[in-house]
This record gives sequence, structure tokens and C-alpha cells, in this order.
Amino acid sequence: MVTMTTTTSTALLTDHYELTMLRAALADGTAHHRSVFEVFARSLPAGRRYGVVAGLGRVVDAVESFRFTPEHLAWLRETGIADDATAAYLAGYRFTGSIDAYREGELYFPHSPVLTVTGTFAECVVLETVILSILNSDSAVASAAARMVSAAHGRVLLDMGSRRTGEQSAVAAARAAYVAGFDATSNLEAGFRYGIPTRGTAAHAFTLAHADEAAAFGSQVRALGTGTTLLVDTYDTREGIARAVAAAGPGLGGIRIDSGDLGAEARAARAQLDALGAGSARIAVTGDLDEHVITALADAPVDVLGVGTRLVTGSGHPTCGMVYKLVSIADRPGADAPMRAVAKRSAGKGSVGGRKVAYRGLDHAGYASRENVVVRHLPDAPEAGLGRALQVPVVRGGNVVHHPSLAEIRAHHRGAKAELMPLDLDLAPGTPRLAADPTALTPTTGA
Amino acid sequence: MVTMTTTTSTALLTDHYELTMLRAALADGTAHHRSVFEVFARSLPAGRRYGVVAGLGRVVDAVESFRFTPEHLAWLRETGIADDATAAYLAGYRFTGSIDAYREGELYFPHSPVLTVTGTFAECVVLETVILSILNSDSAVASAAARMVSAAHGRVLLDMGSRRTGEQSAVAAARAAYVAGFDATSNLEAGFRYGIPTRGTAAHAFTLAHADEAAAFGSQVRALGTGTTLLVDTYDTREGIARAVAAAGPGLGGIRIDSGDLGAEARAARAQLDALGAGSARIAVTGDLDEHVITALADAPVDVLGVGTRLVTGSGHPTCGMVYKLVSIADRPGADAPMRAVAKRSAGKGSVGGRKVAYRGLDHAGYASRENVVVRHLPDAPEAGLGRALQVPVVRGGNVVHHPSLAEIRAHHRGAKAELMPLDLDLAPGTPRLAADPTALTPTTGA
Repeated sequence: MVTMTTTTSTALLTDHYELTMLRAALADGTAHHRSVFEVFARSLPAGRRYGVVAGLGRVVDAVESFRFTPEHLAWLRETGIADDATAAYLAGYRFTGSIDAYREGELYFPHSPVLTVTGTFAECVVLETVILSILNSDSAVASAAARMVSAAHGRVLLDMGSRRTGEQSAVAAARAAYVAGFDATSNLEAGFRYGIPTRGTAAHAFTLAHADEAAAFGSQVRALGTGTTLLVDTYDTREGIARAVAAAGPGLGGIRIDSGDLGAEARAARAQLDALGAGSARIAVTGDLDEHVITALADAPVDVLGVGTRLVTGSGHPTCGMVYKLVSIADRPGADAPMRAVAKRSAGKGSVGGRKVAYRGLDHAGYASRENVVVRHLPDAPEAGLGRALQVPVVRGGNVVHHPSLAEIRAHHRGAKAELMPLDLDLAPGTPRLAADPTALTPTTGA
Repeated sequence: MVTMTTTTSTALLTDHYELTMLRAALADGTAHHRSVFEVFARSLPAGRRYGVVAGLGRVVDAVESFRFTPEHLAWLRETGIADDATAAYLAGYRFTGSIDAYREGELYFPHSPVLTVTGTFAECVVLETVILSILNSDSAVASAAARMVSAAHGRVLLDMGSRRTGEQSAVAAARAAYVAGFDATSNLEAGFRYGIPTRGTAAHAFTLAHADEAAAFGSQVRALGTGTTLLVDTYDTREGIARAVAAAGPGLGGIRIDSGDLGAEARAARAQLDALGAGSARIAVTGDLDEHVITALADAPVDVLGVGTRLVTGSGHPTCGMVYKLVSIADRPGADAPMRAVAKRSAGKGSVGGRKVAYRGLDHAGYASRENVVVRHLPDAPEAGLGRALQVPVVRGGNVVHHPSLAEIRAHHRGAKAELMPLDLDLAPGTPRLAADPTALTPTTGA
């Protein structure tokens, strides 16, 4: 499948200050010093007990597409953002460093080192914005989606939120929701680009476009078969259900209800469908669902839940607070130059210097007991006894070495979520039990 | 300027159900019936007194780029989403109808008919998702931005939120903020694609990358001149300011503070800068600003306000509730077929049939007094005495006839906002005084 969007350059999805820093660093030589940048969140959104990492696959694509075109370079020169040396550097830009990261679908907590970028200061510093844009937005959707999946208890969950977020964010949101366990999406580009199952039947406009509801249902059944789902609430839901069964017969695939008290409507619909002999017709509900509404529908005879606004806007938390911080840098060029840990001391926004590695401690029953985050010098030497290693090599020498399928990502997410205790999955506001303790980290001079 | 992104096909930024409806409508002939779809919001986000329309220019681009590629069509056939007739229709798809809309930057209220699409049912129904994605997300940002502009009372406002929203939504957000009066953005793609001024100097990483703060400031001043803005809070803000003036001299352009009590920090910084002879150095503050924090900084000596998360996430309301509803359709093909008004009666989600036109009533002092929305048969016959006409022709016969510059859009926004009364601009929660009253609308059978 060819998609022009994903092969488009991502080089200007970048904050101005990154190129300004690059310019000064090229002039003073710092540009060529080996550096380590880390992505982490100081906290989760208020009340959340865990977060879900999503977007890593898109980050990899964005880094590979981070190339400046001649038009970009001409514009950067014209505007004075880049001088000759900066433009020359950008013309040859290609990321040649390493990326390690939490697997996509992995859970994260405060101070989890979600993604680590290693390379020259120059090649790392320019990636800040596009990496954070993707991780912050995709993880926000996945984190909300995971809560909805818990609330749904196995019922079918559909993403129908494309119209409530930016047109490209909609595609990313469909992917993030799928990572976290949604079953399908309404978004066709997500189907085309990522192979995510898509679903959809009809809107109210289709019914209104016909002389009456019976004509609309008859047309839909002729075109799509009796297994289709008919939207029954355009005029009167009781009459709509009767017409739906009349149009499709007892083999009607399903009905959708988009208004009213969804629990009461579903119960009445189930009784009516059963009485009409359409016992196998499934009931789909849509309209301002979120994890709490889904929980409230636990006892209602609802088979399919279509979620829109609250999914793609992170159910009250449309972005994560992930930041991209320099934690270690060499004082001279060269791969063998010694590294020093660095950290800022800004009020309330201090950071911990040194490259971190992370493990999920597990108790004897297999439940996650602790997010073990340690600073260390040799990034590839495993510590023993700290638990499940959370970071995997994603890019080495500029080449992508991590290629999980979406099915593998979904499976990893299910496994990681299965390590949580019931109290971690509680949808009520709480605190993340597994927050890493940055004060317990021991920066070493060698890190 | 050539940007691949904006010329990429938008055809699959579409919900599955639109093509399912198309398939059934092609089979039964409804596809070719002349139709009118309207975009409106039933309400504003809770507590908001007005909304700002943004994204119209992007909608026009998206409609022009709504073309199905051979790869798209092959995929739609493979998946069974499209049958032969549907694929054949989509292969030749090109919107040939009309669009009328509120100007970009215009204010809107509940039930304002923000955008009207006229054409065959087939060519209109497939545009629902991409139009709503753009208008709902861009208008959410512009609506938040307008409140921040009011709070800033003329101080410089910068969009720095790219990292807190999807990477393409970040570009759209920069544009929407600029429409509503922001002065510049950090987002380079927004500068490249739309000509929006961009700004940026350095992050904490730049200071940390150097042996000490003095070395970092010295390098930045050498590369960017004494007029640059130095970030002073990496270690200790008092010392940072002293080093900034030492590095740049009394002609220092400015400092940025990103942590602590921003009002208190700004006051202390102003006194310190003045005492050091750097009276012309401007003070920029960043860090979790929104319209309320900006208001609280009214008396602080802050010259530049950089807004991130709360801008691009709509300051608590990341999407608008705009919907795309069929309001009128012919019962047979042909441009001369009579139209009938249609409306759904779903509980709590009813609509008003018939094509609407809208005027902003103005009182004798020039203040907006009423959103006059009326249903009418002949869309191009002006009503007298109802006020300022709010809709303009945007597309005619598939051709774009409305080409405002961003400068014109910004000017229109300023003028429309100047028609509001002080109470409409109050940032405290309130109700929109100018909500159109849908029950006062009189659907006519001819509409």
C-alpha cells in the first residue's frame, strides 16, 4: 500500500528553537558531542493510575522521513532561521543514532523513561517536537481507550471519533485505540494505512434522504444484506425497530441507537427484537460514551459500543505531559568521549541526570510490584533481579531494528495490562501505585 | 511553496459509513438527488459565550484534494467496502457542488449555520468526516485562542503547543491561533506552509549541553546576536539573569522564564534587569499558561506570553460539537427537482429542516444584538433588515471562489469580535447571549 502522507517529510514538524539551538551548537562545536535525550512524564493526568504508550511505530516513521527538501532549505535561508552552515548540515540530515523505547502498548508511570535517543547533540535535538507530538497525542488516546476496554468487559468497541479531532490525528487515534484493544474503527485511512478493521453502515442522513424509513431500510438491506445494522432512532425508535425487522426479517444483523437513555433504550429494543423473532440481532449504541457511561451500561443488553469524542480527546486528558530532556552529554566530539550526567534545577521542573534503564518488578503472583528505574553507564548490560526489562532497541545506527506487527503490539499490551492489580484498573480517580521514584535514582558521574 | 502534505489525497479521511451509504444510494438512485447539508453546533462548550470559526481554508483544500487513487480503489474493492458501481463512481469523484460558509474568523453561536454544502447526495455525503474533523478541531483552538487574546491585552502571544497535539494538528493549531490573533508560532511547518511568523531561541538542553550557563549564553549571543532571548531558569534564575546581561550587555533582547511563580519571577526579573541597565530587555514567560493565568499576570511586567498545552487542547474543550446534517433533498434527480426540508426527531438531538441563512443583527451602537437564522427557499436573495450577512460563497460548481489571505481573515475576526459586548467577552462561565433560537425557525415546505 502506498500512502503519500506517511512518506512526506516530517522535517518542519519542528519548533523554531530547535534550529536556533542547532545553529549556535554548530558554531561552537557542541553539535557534534554525543548526547542522550530521554522522554518521560513527571506525572500522569490527574486521577489516572496508569498510562499506555502508543505511537512508537509512527515515531519511527517520522524519524525516517525527517529529511529537508530543497524547498525547506530555501525557506529556512530566506527567513534567516538557518545560516549557511546550518542549511548545509540540514541538507544532509539523516538520523544515524540509536533509539531505545518502551514497547508500543506497554504501560508507563510517572518518571518511566519511555524513549531514549542517543546520537550527536545536533541530530537528537531537532527531533524533540515531532517525537513528543506523536507520543503525547497517541498515548493520550491509548490511555483513555484502555480504560474503556476495561469497562466494556469484552463487548465490541468501535472508534467513531474521527470527526472530533484533526483529520490526521483521527488516523493516529484509530491506531492508538486499536493498540489498546478496540476492535475496529470508522476511519478508512486507518484501514488502508495500517490494516485496522473498519466498520460502518449508515447515518441519519440516509434515512432522511428517502421518502420514509421503510424505503431507506429496504434500500440498505438490498445493498448490504440482511446482516447489516440499521439505525433506528431517526423518527421513533419503537417504530424504527419494527421497520428494521420488517425490512431484513428475523435474520437482521443489528440495530443502532444514537439517542435517548441508552440503557433503557437497549432493554426495550432487546425485548422488542426478541418478540419479533430477531433474537440474534445485535444492539449497538453510540452517543457521548466514555468509560463511565460504558460501566453504567454493564447490565444493559448492549453488544457493540461506538465511542467518539471522549476517545479521541483522551477522555478529559487530550495530551500527555511527556517531555524530551537532555540527560547526558560528552564534552568533546567522538564516540569514545566520556559522558557527563546533566539535569536542570528549575523550580518544580527539575530533572534527574544520566541515562535511565527500567524494569517492571513483578511479585510472586506475577503482579507488577514496582517500576525499577536506574541510572547506569553501560546501556546494554542487563541488571539481574530487577524484573521485566521495559526498553527494547528500536533504532541502531539510524536503522530500524524493531518491527512489531499491530497484532504483536496488541498482544503485548494485553500482557502488560494483565500484570496490573485490580486496584490499578479501578476507573475512579486514584494515584499510580507504580510511580518510579526519581529521588531514589542515583546519578553516577559516568552516566 | 510546495508541500506534499496539503496536496495528498484526503479521500480516505472518511468514515466507513459514508461509503456504505453511497453504495446503497447509488443502487437506489438517491445518490443523484440534489441535497443540502449544514454544519452547525447545538451548543457551545459549557460556559463559553462565543465560538470562533476556523479551518475554512483547510476545508477548501481538503475538498479539492478529495480524489481516490488507484491504490485506494483497489483496497476498497478488496475489502468489499465498495462494489463495482461504487468504485466506478469514486474513481471519477470530484466535488462539483457549492459551499457557502461563515467567513473564517467569524464568531458563531449555537445553531449558527456555519457551513452549507449543496450538491448531489453522493458528492455531499462523503465529505462529512473530513469537513467536521477540520472545523471541529481548528475552531476549538481558535475559540480558546480568542479568549487568550482578550486576556493578553495587547501583549505578544506565541503558540508553543506543537508538542502537545498530533504532529499535523500542531500545524493546524498554529494557523487557528493566528486567525484568532496570536502573533507567531514555534511551528516551522506553519511558517513554511502558511507564512505565519515563527519564533524560538533555546531550550534548557542548550544550556545543559555546555560546560556552564555562561558558556551557553555566550555561544547563543555569538550565533544569534545580542537581541536574542536567553532562557534563564535552568539553574538559578537570579544568577541566570546576571549571566544573561553579562553575555549580551545592556542591549540584551530578552529573557525567558519557564518555571516558578511567573508573576513574582517577572517582577523580580524586571527590577534586576533595570538595575543592570537592561531596561529594554523584554520578559517572556512560558509554562502552563491559559486565559486565566494570563489574566492573573495582567499587572506583571510580562511582555511575551508563550502558550502551549492549553491552546492546542482548546483550553479544556479540545473539540467543538459541530455536526453535518442533511436538511433538504429532492425526490428525483436533476437540478430543477423540487426540494423538501428534512429533519430527524431523535430524542435530544432533533434538527430543523430546510436550508438556513444567517445574519448578525446589530444595535444602534454597532453591538451584535441577535443571530438571525432563517429558513429560506432561494439561497441568493438577500433579506433586508436582518443585519450583517454571515455566509459567503466559497465554492461554486466545484470551483473555489473565496480566497481570503490570512491577514484578511485576521482582520475579519477582529472586526467581528469588536461587535461583541463586554459581557460576551467575559472569561467567566456564562451563556451565549446570541444563541440562535431553532424553535423560532420556520421550515417551509419549499426549503
